[in-house]
Amino acid sequence: MHHFADRLAEAQRTKRSAVCVGIDPRVSLLPEEFRPTRDTPNAHASAVGAWAREVVRVVAPYAPIVKPQLAFFEVLGAPGYRAYHETVIAAQEAGLLVLADAKRGDIGSTAAAYAEAHFEMVGADAITVNPYLGRDSIEPFLSWCRRGRGVFVLVKTSNPGSSDLQDLRVGDAPLHEHVASMVDSLAGETGMIGACGLSAVGAVVGATYPAELVRLRTKLPRCPLLVPGYGAQGASAEDCASALLADGTGAIVNSSRGITFAFRSGAHGERFGDARWRESVEACVVEMRDALQAARTARSPAS
Amino acid sequence: MHHFADRLAEAQRTKRSAVCVGIDPRVSLLPEEFRPTRDTPNAHASAVGAWAREVVRVVAPYAPIVKPQLAFFEVLGAPGYRAYHETVIAAQEAGLLVLADAKRGDIGSTAAAYAEAHFEMVGADAITVNPYLGRDSIEPFLSWCRRGRGVFVLVKTSNPGSSDLQDLRVGDAPLHEHVASMVDSLAGETGMIGACGLSAVGAVVGATYPAELVRLRTKLPRCPLLVPGYGAQGASAEDCASALLADGTGAIVNSSRGITFAFRSGAHGERFGDARWRESVEACVVEMRDALQAARTARSPAS
Repeated sequence: MHHFADRLAEAQRTKRSAVCVGIDPRVSLLPEEFRPTRDTPNAHASAVGAWAREVVRVVAPYAPIVKPQLAFFEVLGAPGYRAYHETVIAAQEAGLLVLADAKRGDIGSTAAAYAEAHFEMVGADAITVNPYLGRDSIEPFLSWCRRGRGVFVLVKTSNPGSSDLQDLRVGDAPLHEHVASMVDSLAGETGMIGACGLSAVGAVVGATYPAELVRLRTKLPRCPLLVPGYGAQGASAEDCASALLADGTGAIVNSSRGITFAFRSGAHGERFGDARWRESVEACVVEMRDALQAARTARSPAS
Repeated sequence: MHHFADRLAEAQRTKRSAVCVGIDPRVSLLPEEFRPTRDTPNAHASAVGAWAREVVRVVAPYAPIVKPQLAFFEVLGAPGYRAYHETVIAAQEAGLLVLADAKRGDIGSTAAAYAEAHFEMVGADAITVNPYLGRDSIEPFLSWCRRGRGVFVLVKTSNPGSSDLQDLRVGDAPLHEHVASMVDSLAGETGMIGACGLSAVGAVVGATYPAELVRLRTKLPRCPLLVPGYGAQGASAEDCASALLADGTGAIVNSSRGITFAFRSGAHGERFGDARWRESVEACVVEMRDALQAARTARSPAS
């Protein structure tokens, strides 16, 4: 398997897109046609799986990568885990990369088991991980990075509470910059850098803190960034575009319900509604792709 | 359902034990009688489930609580998730509390989905969570704490890499003490304190850093502590006993493979071996219970 950063950069160039579509299934929000007829985990998981397979098919031409959120599958128990696995396979068959949003964080053989679960058993291309346990909680993922997989380490998250710990001052800098230094060091280890110059070790940096995003982009020059916060959480395309390199690679910007469930309310609800939910999803992902593209071009007109 | 801290304290008093038995199944380490005949996730998960049901039956008289490690179930895919669920049910039927070692960390509705997954779908009594995303990543668990469940927040973990972030100096104190302050504040919120005076919000503090454990015990007077690091990781019963209150409650000390797989090597291997693995498990849990009890009594002879 090719290096993860090269696979991601190539997909971004081919599709001219930095959009990461978050797959956050909620049974109560599914389009009518997928509503489960029975109130059992099996029926809910089947509905979620069928919906997710359809979503990845609709977004595949416009996005390099999708990001299933594990919590919304895990809540459906073992059948939900199966639906997650099937979603990963369907996404890859549609030509998408898959980033498992698991935010796992553990050590030694336990971290190795999580890596095996998501990379070998399920076959995801990349995973999000939590750095609180330190460097030895991330190292078990690196051997997978040498074999084509990727890891995105939480650095500065997009939620209001991210300041509680991540912004505490350690010496002259906030904690998240120290985490960034650790991630930068891991990103430069042997075998981590792809032909494109980017690493298989990336970082999660929310766009809801634009100044921090600009600073972390500079501190993490070889890390692909996963940028949450677009849309509903308040970040603009301009905020997010500061994470992109001049050629449009180097970052992916996530939107979940802003793409998949926009048909449920507002302008997209009026225009499309439940029956035309596929068109709503397609319109949203295209709109976001173009907004990011325009914002990036405005920043780097030469490219 | 009674308050989690009261249920835990009562179980500890009844069994005169502070032992938490970690359930970390590894197919390659299972006793011969459970070895799967086929090399499929289903066969592996069935073997793990059958073994775990037997382990909880053996340890139930001597331990108040068991701690399944999610990673080792997740690595077996959907069948593994089913085995996890069955292990929780079997443990509770045997009169044990169950702490899901999931170390999940996410925000808002995602954190709520993780809580629902482990508390409602699976029915665990408590869960471990990661604080890196801040207070709003823990708050979704509190409404469950008001209804009999518990949460243990990572504060100072037992691994060597825990110093990378957790010991960084923030002002006059290491980061983990700031996390402890946040946990202490959550532990005192309305409805969190049980009749026993302890909170449903606990903390994870490794015994491999004995000085930090003593300091954090003082800073977290109303938090039950989950103390990893006993045995193989190097902490002694004396190190761990400093986390216990004078009446033997207030902390649970975990051992995983040191109890369940001791029959595979060393003195327990010679004495019991594979065929008598149940006796080995029983001997280990009794030995650990008594060692903790003796170390606690040596510290607080009056009690």
